[in-house]
Amino acid sequence: MTSLRILPRLVSSRQGNAPAHSFVNARLSARLFSTTVKRDTAVKAIGYTQYGKPSEILRLHEYTLPELKANKVHIRFLAFPINPADINQIEGTYPTKPPFLTKEIGSSEGFCVAGNEGLAEVVAVGNDVSNIKKGDWVVMAGAGFGTWRSFAECSPCDIQVIPKDIVSPIQAATLTVNPCTAYRMLKDFGRLEEGDFVIQNGANSGVGLMTIQLAKKWGYRTINVVRDRPNLDDLKDHLYKLGATHVVTDTEFGKQTTKEQIKKWKGDSKIKLGLNCVGGKAATEMAKYLSPNGHYVTYGAMSKQPLTLPASLLIFKNLHFHGFWVSRWAETHSKSMRYEMLKDIMDMMHAGEIKEMETECIPWDTKQAGSESVVLNAAEKGITGYSSKGKQVILLK
Amino acid sequence: MTSLRILPRLVSSRQGNAPAHSFVNARLSARLFSTTVKRDTAVKAIGYTQYGKPSEILRLHEYTLPELKANKVHIRFLAFPINPADINQIEGTYPTKPPFLTKEIGSSEGFCVAGNEGLAEVVAVGNDVSNIKKGDWVVMAGAGFGTWRSFAECSPCDIQVIPKDIVSPIQAATLTVNPCTAYRMLKDFGRLEEGDFVIQNGANSGVGLMTIQLAKKWGYRTINVVRDRPNLDDLKDHLYKLGATHVVTDTEFGKQTTKEQIKKWKGDSKIKLGLNCVGGKAATEMAKYLSPNGHYVTYGAMSKQPLTLPASLLIFKNLHFHGFWVSRWAETHSKSMRYEMLKDIMDMMHAGEIKEMETECIPWDTKQAGSESVVLNAAEKGITGYSSKGKQVILLK
Repeated sequence: MTSLRILPRLVSSRQGNAPAHSFVNARLSARLFSTTVKRDTAVKAIGYTQYGKPSEILRLHEYTLPELKANKVHIRFLAFPINPADINQIEGTYPTKPPFLTKEIGSSEGFCVAGNEGLAEVVAVGNDVSNIKKGDWVVMAGAGFGTWRSFAECSPCDIQVIPKDIVSPIQAATLTVNPCTAYRMLKDFGRLEEGDFVIQNGANSGVGLMTIQLAKKWGYRTINVVRDRPNLDDLKDHLYKLGATHVVTDTEFGKQTTKEQIKKWKGDSKIKLGLNCVGGKAATEMAKYLSPNGHYVTYGAMSKQPLTLPASLLIFKNLHFHGFWVSRWAETHSKSMRYEMLKDIMDMMHAGEIKEMETECIPWDTKQAGSESVVLNAAEKGITGYSSKGKQVILLK
Repeated sequence: MTSLRILPRLVSSRQGNAPAHSFVNARLSARLFSTTVKRDTAVKAIGYTQYGKPSEILRLHEYTLPELKANKVHIRFLAFPINPADINQIEGTYPTKPPFLTKEIGSSEGFCVAGNEGLAEVVAVGNDVSNIKKGDWVVMAGAGFGTWRSFAECSPCDIQVIPKDIVSPIQAATLTVNPCTAYRMLKDFGRLEEGDFVIQNGANSGVGLMTIQLAKKWGYRTINVVRDRPNLDDLKDHLYKLGATHVVTDTEFGKQTTKEQIKKWKGDSKIKLGLNCVGGKAATEMAKYLSPNGHYVTYGAMSKQPLTLPASLLIFKNLHFHGFWVSRWAETHSKSMRYEMLKDIMDMMHAGEIKEMETECIPWDTKQAGSESVVLNAAEKGITGYSSKGKQVILLK
């Protein structure tokens, strides 16, 4: 991240022939004399006018940022990830359905900007807005913002300022979903104490990797279930390096030898918490490993299968089954409580205690005509794109 | 309940020819002069030496009560119900497995006395035992006592004295399972407030009927699901008289009109708690009626089907799924806390706020040779016996 990237840009920059660098230098000089220079107000946004398959309905919409109002903020996006929830939202299967906007973004038919997570910098602040200043880094205060665009107008309550000197743009752009999900599930369920066990499936997912690292930091032990694969040893090695206590594959998981192995690992300790993002039979199997009175949290259903629970797990084993959705958590908790968590996570990232997840960084030069295809392609790959090279993160320039 | 029933009886009473009444009068006189008269110590117990179908393995075992020890109590059973859990225990499918006793009950092969719930009176108290006196009514302190017998030796901690002037023997003998289950589920889950809704299936079960009445007393509204049946109107009438707010059948339950009807009933209120003793598809359907953040408690699985949960109910609707088992509650809470509940329930029964459940009373004259067949028959009918005429309760004499 260079300081150049957080400078405001003019619409003329994409029309003129001057090289970007000379333009920036010119603008740096301009800023010394005036703060009312004309800013870039041409917005490129990726979204949809109706729900459907990303490949069929996502498109570019261009509009002009409205003039800055006293109670508003203008922000420029620096990076945003392609999250599974974004794809479900585009498909219309996600419960958070952002509005289809018309006059706010100059669309006659109603256009919904895709994307929920991202990092932006503040490019202009209305006169009535305090505690936010030009150049600040911000993440979204909640879900449904519409982050897949170059610029946006928003209210101060829609964004959260974060320090920009302690994490990378990629870490900041992917801060509010996966790390926060892992953080809250470990903090809020099962009353974990040092030495307790957590068992999780999808251990190689964004949340799974964060869970391994946070658990390690907080003194919990993890049993991590991953799908069998050709390069299994590399993956196991990677998870152990991050802090996994044990790793088993889904094919090993149901076997008697694995059951005995896990029993040995556990010893007299308790498996107090199960984290499930898979569903189906494997998720039922995992629930059986929990110690009596344990808590089991479902935060995804990658198998698209429901969770089936024998009554005995509920009645006699006294397991408690919950769900976790980070968007709801953000809605139902104070901004200060959320910031406390974000800051804690960023401090751990800064200290190197949490590694950022593997990402495939995709540059989007919003000044280039037709450049939006990189975002459309990434969205088309969607969830699949993740498992190959890591989460896809679009870097805007 | 006459006072005669709580008098001790002698072994000789079943061997002699004197009419019971004259015998009792003779003993009444004897008691004026001595408290060390020989008591009846011939025990008839119904139980098993191995798990299996009640009709195949239940049998009578006769033994002699051991001599009273200083730290022990002798009790005589007055009544016990045939509960579904008793049958499951005999079949070996229940997690609480009482020990197969040998020398304590004069059995060479190991014999397990059936039954978990019942009402007994104290017939003798060891010298070191305080706070329990002859003639007291007692219920069991926990599960696994072995209540299907005429007499028993026990420790003070195995029993709970209850007042005998405020409830009937039937009410006392069926106090610790069904009423306590309903009581605790309403108290401990969902943080109910006046006007809130509870939805339950198996509403005509022992727990279901108690739930209706306790909810009514505490100001909660109930939506009650029952199985369709020929005499439906009678049943509905019965439930409404007990205090049910609404009653629907399982066949009406999935229909769009019922969905709309329940929505109307609910209005702006919340269905905060679901109580499930059925399982299977109908139980999943019921979960969908819960308001967001609701709690759903499974305490039975009459359909013998597991509970299948779409991930959306967990993740997005934030429903919490628990189990309830009254035996565990008793084990994990203090005797005084349990007594507080028992007393509260008995006071409501005494005030006529809770009607005792419908029961089929079956007398067992333990003095008669071959009389144990009434218990064996009742156990063979088991759970089925319940739904026809009400819960089967054995009254001992």
